[in-house]
Amino acid sequence: MTVEKQGTVKVLKHESEILKNNPLGDKHVRDLYVYLPPDYDSETNVNYPTVYCLTGFTGRGKMFLNDNAFAPNLAERLDKLISDGTIRPMIAVLPDCFTYYGGSQYINSSATGNYEDYLTEEIVSFVDENFRTIKDKNSRAVMGKSSGGYGALIMAMRHADKFGLVCSTSGDAYFEFCYFPGIAEGFRAIKGDAKSFMKKIWRETERKGKDDFAALNTIGMSVCYSPNEKAELGFDLPFDLETGEIRWDVWQRWLEHDPVRLVEQSVENLKSLKLLFIDAGTRDEFHLDLGAKILCRKLNDYAILFIHEEFDDGHFNIGYRQNRSLELISQNFDNE
Amino acid sequence: MTVEKQGTVKVLKHESEILKNNPLGDKHVRDLYVYLPPDYDSETNVNYPTVYCLTGFTGRGKMFLNDNAFAPNLAERLDKLISDGTIRPMIAVLPDCFTYYGGSQYINSSATGNYEDYLTEEIVSFVDENFRTIKDKNSRAVMGKSSGGYGALIMAMRHADKFGLVCSTSGDAYFEFCYFPGIAEGFRAIKGDAKSFMKKIWRETERKGKDDFAALNTIGMSVCYSPNEKAELGFDLPFDLETGEIRWDVWQRWLEHDPVRLVEQSVENLKSLKLLFIDAGTRDEFHLDLGAKILCRKLNDYAILFIHEEFDDGHFNIGYRQNRSLELISQNFDNE
Amino acid sequence: MTVEKQGTVKVLKHESEILKNNPLGDKHVRDLYVYLPPDYDSETNVNYPTVYCLTGFTGRGKMFLNDNAFAPNLAERLDKLISDGTIRPMIAVLPDCFTYYGGSQYINSSATGNYEDYLTEEIVSFVDENFRTIKDKNSRAVMGKSSGGYGALIMAMRHADKFGLVCSTSGDAYFEFCYFPGIAEGFRAIKGDAKSFMKKIWRETERKGKDDFAALNTIGMSVCYSPNEKAELGFDLPFDLETGEIRWDVWQRWLEHDPVRLVEQSVENLKSLKLLFIDAGTRDEFHLDLGAKILCRKLNDYAILFIHEEFDDGHFNIGYRQNRSLELISQNFDNE
Amino acid sequence: MTVEKQGTVKVLKHESEILKNNPLGDKHVRDLYVYLPPDYDSETNVNYPTVYCLTGFTGRGKMFLNDNAFAPNLAERLDKLISDGTIRPMIAVLPDCFTYYGGSQYINSSATGNYEDYLTEEIVSFVDENFRTIKDKNSRAVMGKSSGGYGALIMAMRHADKFGLVCSTSGDAYFEFCYFPGIAEGFRAIKGDAKSFMKKIWRETERKGKDDFAALNTIGMSVCYSPNEKAELGFDLPFDLETGEIRWDVWQRWLEHDPVRLVEQSVENLKSLKLLFIDAGTRDEFHLDLGAKILCRKLNDYAILFIHEEFDDGHFNIGYRQNRSLELISQNFDNE
Repeated sequence: MTVEKQGTVKVLKHESEILKNNPLGDKHVRDLYVYLPPDYDSETNVNYPTVYCLTGFTGRGKMFLNDNAFAPNLAERLDKLISDGTIRPMIAVLPDCFTYYGGSQYINSSATGNYEDYLTEEIVSFVDENFRTIKDKNSRAVMGKSSGGYGALIMAMRHADKFGLVCSTSGDAYFEFCYFPGIAEGFRAIKGDAKSFMKKIWRETERKGKDDFAALNTIGMSVCYSPNEKAELGFDLPFDLETGEIRWDVWQRWLEHDPVRLVEQSVENLKSLKLLFIDAGTRDEFHLDLGAKILCRKLNDYAILFIHEEFDDGHFNIGYRQNRSLELISQNFDNE
Repeated sequence: MTVEKQGTVKVLKHESEILKNNPLGDKHVRDLYVYLPPDYDSETNVNYPTVYCLTGFTGRGKMFLNDNAFAPNLAERLDKLISDGTIRPMIAVLPDCFTYYGGSQYINSSATGNYEDYLTEEIVSFVDENFRTIKDKNSRAVMGKSSGGYGALIMAMRHADKFGLVCSTSGDAYFEFCYFPGIAEGFRAIKGDAKSFMKKIWRETERKGKDDFAALNTIGMSVCYSPNEKAELGFDLPFDLETGEIRWDVWQRWLEHDPVRLVEQSVENLKSLKLLFIDAGTRDEFHLDLGAKILCRKLNDYAILFIHEEFDDGHFNIGYRQNRSLELISQNFDNE
Repeated sequence: MTVEKQGTVKVLKHESEILKNNPLGDKHVRDLYVYLPPDYDSETNVNYPTVYCLTGFTGRGKMFLNDNAFAPNLAERLDKLISDGTIRPMIAVLPDCFTYYGGSQYINSSATGNYEDYLTEEIVSFVDENFRTIKDKNSRAVMGKSSGGYGALIMAMRHADKFGLVCSTSGDAYFEFCYFPGIAEGFRAIKGDAKSFMKKIWRETERKGKDDFAALNTIGMSVCYSPNEKAELGFDLPFDLETGEIRWDVWQRWLEHDPVRLVEQSVENLKSLKLLFIDAGTRDEFHLDLGAKILCRKLNDYAILFIHEEFDDGHFNIGYRQNRSLELISQNFDNE
Repeated sequence: MTVEKQGTVKVLKHESEILKNNPLGDKHVRDLYVYLPPDYDSETNVNYPTVYCLTGFTGRGKMFLNDNAFAPNLAERLDKLISDGTIRPMIAVLPDCFTYYGGSQYINSSATGNYEDYLTEEIVSFVDENFRTIKDKNSRAVMGKSSGGYGALIMAMRHADKFGLVCSTSGDAYFEFCYFPGIAEGFRAIKGDAKSFMKKIWRETERKGKDDFAALNTIGMSVCYSPNEKAELGFDLPFDLETGEIRWDVWQRWLEHDPVRLVEQSVENLKSLKLLFIDAGTRDEFHLDLGAKILCRKLNDYAILFIHEEFDDGHFNIGYRQNRSLELISQNFDNE
């Protein structure tokens, strides 16, 4: 048995100007985890392409490194794929865009902070300053699953000047299917008081059921998609707190963030990409395979090129799909 | 132990003019099950008030008489409630409005047949002709659960001249919550071919999963709410057969049948009722407790009187709630 | 469309000597439901073979006639199979061996009453007296599912002089797999007080969970397998009421009723059968497919003939398997 | 907001003599993760008590450090508890006793390797050599959940000379309840070929169901409790590969490892402990609360002192219970 060469993980402390004084009081100094490929330290005249890996809702970069005896974490996966020649050596950046409400969807919101700016302006520069990256959009990829896939799509649509390669696995899309069905359960669990509900979520000893996750998700998306500086909590929930009836004006504000609806205003950016890869499992519990289908049809309508794949699995425990994204990214990085 | 007096169940064959040549080829000669109270045969000079009991989707009147060792069927329940004086002696009518697609929602549809006419015109007259009923709207009640509750609400809104007392338990309302979340699952199970799917449903040996019920429900509601004589199957599904994307024009046709939306065009009828009772379980799997809340607020907006109750249970195995409806009906029947 | 000829269902009141004064105070006068084939009334010189159909735990004969819009009940099924020539015309007897505890397993117990005697002595004679049956073991079959299958096996093992053809679908066997795993859940739900638990079971308004069924099952089997006239409730539970620890002496008494263990003392009876059919679904929630496999190996060890089939389904909603049993029974009835 | 002082995690490479040439070819050089309290580096004349933290089945020490945004990992938890004075500063050792089959139960087995020796002989010495520990059993605790709780109990029973304080949360006990019910499911999933099944478990892309975990668990326990050097795989499964029938001789060998059965041969060791703490959730999916109850009664029978607690939760996501164990350990460490 030959032992594969291992990359290293660096932890850099980054102090954010953009997140300073964010409305939730979340930390603005955060650890940034960065994976460097095996020969990074010895091959000091080589610059490397970079992939930004975005976690799903309730996640943050560090979690990509969590240990699981039966499946490689992201660093082990990269080691293996680089070692066996499946992918080129590359740097992987694992940003932390977590908030008190479980996430930021990698977009700016008056209710959470400007995480889209934070990622595209501060983190990208910080990485490029601190590591021997190839400073070009076609050597800079972004990938993610679930809300991380959503974040990747946002990068594709609004920041194609920075990220030339984009992979979204089970990315949030077609909000009617991925979010809407959880609203009723969420309404019940929230019991008219989102503030108390969040305190409960943060109490470790509290047992949490399926409805609690639906509720957290509904609150988490509200804070991103329907912020409202005049509202007591800083955002609007998409339902009436007493009856659960949908507030269609709020829901409409959510829909304005739906990748399916964002395509038409992002055509040029999307066309400029070197790689746009979209996949999802055909048993996805949030129907994100349908979201992917609908998104792809829309891309097609605008003659935007993309690769679409489906796989026989659900939404969870599908880390192995990272292999496919990484492989495509590696193939499509510019050669220099 | 004293044995309570038992009513009798009569089975009458009714030949329907309205259902003759219905588009699905469903039977137009159907058995009508009617419960007569204990003393009906001896007290031959007494006329009785009548309650029409409507089953949920996939049901038909006969099922109210199914045996369950641990819970009374409807006839046993009536025996008991009459015997212990909780309710007055009354006749109970158990109509069969089942179709090939699982039900009719008790409304007219070019895709199923005119079940609303069938019930309100043919069955009511047939019952009044064959039994010693009190032929007055305030001695004629209608009650039901789930789609049966929906049917009862339709009677309240459009046939208050016939039914003066109405009880809806967990009746379909606020379609966004009760139907919408099942559409994505339904889309997957239907696999682009509703016709083949229905054949599978009717094959007894086929294992059926949770998604299959969602699919049957979506098809069943389409056939009632969005019939289309020009469509191949006679109705429109609310989604694109390839991607699952919602067809909003079709969905809009569904919404026109939502009790929450029907209130405003039925105010006079609703105000004329002697009893309007709405209840639901706070764990209802189809969120019909929220539908009830939203409906009640709407009724309130129009100054319509009603009684609203919630109970700590789900959507299934709640036959015991019939007691509450029957009790209220009994109290509100006209005294003569 | 040709309408198939329909049989008739007779309801006879039978007054049992054996069940009179049964320890639970359950009714000793019971309705016996009997299906007569289509031509029974016209072909008055014909005698018919008979099949006894035994329900599962919590069931009673009448339930075989429950209506289900999507699947035939037993009478409709027999109509169809007789009508299309799949099976010979036959009489079907639907005994009621239900008790306060949910069933009797069709065996004698000091805690429930002598249901084995009741069935084999009283009901068989009563049927033979009241209907034109062929009074011969090779024209008398017994079939059932789950606890009904167990009952059929008991008839095979101890009453082969009466029942010459036996079909057990998913019959209780290998108690380690079908009952043991439910004991721990049952212990929790019973909460140290089986009497109060049973009262709760009988309260219709009480929500019942999965564990409650496990508890009812554990109590129900105890009352049949480990009766104890000296115990307060009349039977022993197989666990310590405080800790849940297994009472191995009680469990041993259960095992003495396990078909797998009863084979060796019933070899002659089993060999005398004209038909012994055993089937089960390979996803059976109570692992009765494994029970069937183990039972069949034991039968094999003793050179007993049998037919064994497996099907791709679980324990519930498998009424369609009655077709297979009925077909084999029909083929193996004596010709006269 | 004051920032609490943080401890550090050291990763030491340990080369094991005992695991060298283990039968599964698992690594014998392993990373040992050790948590050092905040002031360890500055207070160089202080020696610290030590707690060994054992993971559950499928786990290894490193996993205690996995990141979860909503709950502290073990290092963060220790930081917090030390910082707020709930516990004394202590060293925490996170051993890796994982194997190809998912674990070792922290015991010796000819089929896996001598993990009990590895832990008690090699790791304890290695830690004591490399860190400023208090080298005394009353300053050395062991705690764990599930199989980790089992491991802690084994230390209590056989290695009380090394570990004077023991905490078992939901530790495997009363094998009839925790393992037996999974055997039937396991049998089905293994499909007669444990070797192929294990390959499937290790294929990352394979979807794994609930039954697969039951199967892995059954195999994993077999390899620990019923090793057999003469068997092809090196161990005996507790069931017949064709029918699933229990092999009682193999099951008996399992039972010899049941803490409930081991008490009587370990009385002196158990009595010598400074702390024996046993807790479990009253909804434990593996009924380990019942195992705990039964174990405690046995301890009581032998007049062994212990603390027993129950909490309102299941088997999973109960990391917060570590607080209680750590608190008790801290209180019971020797003062010096």
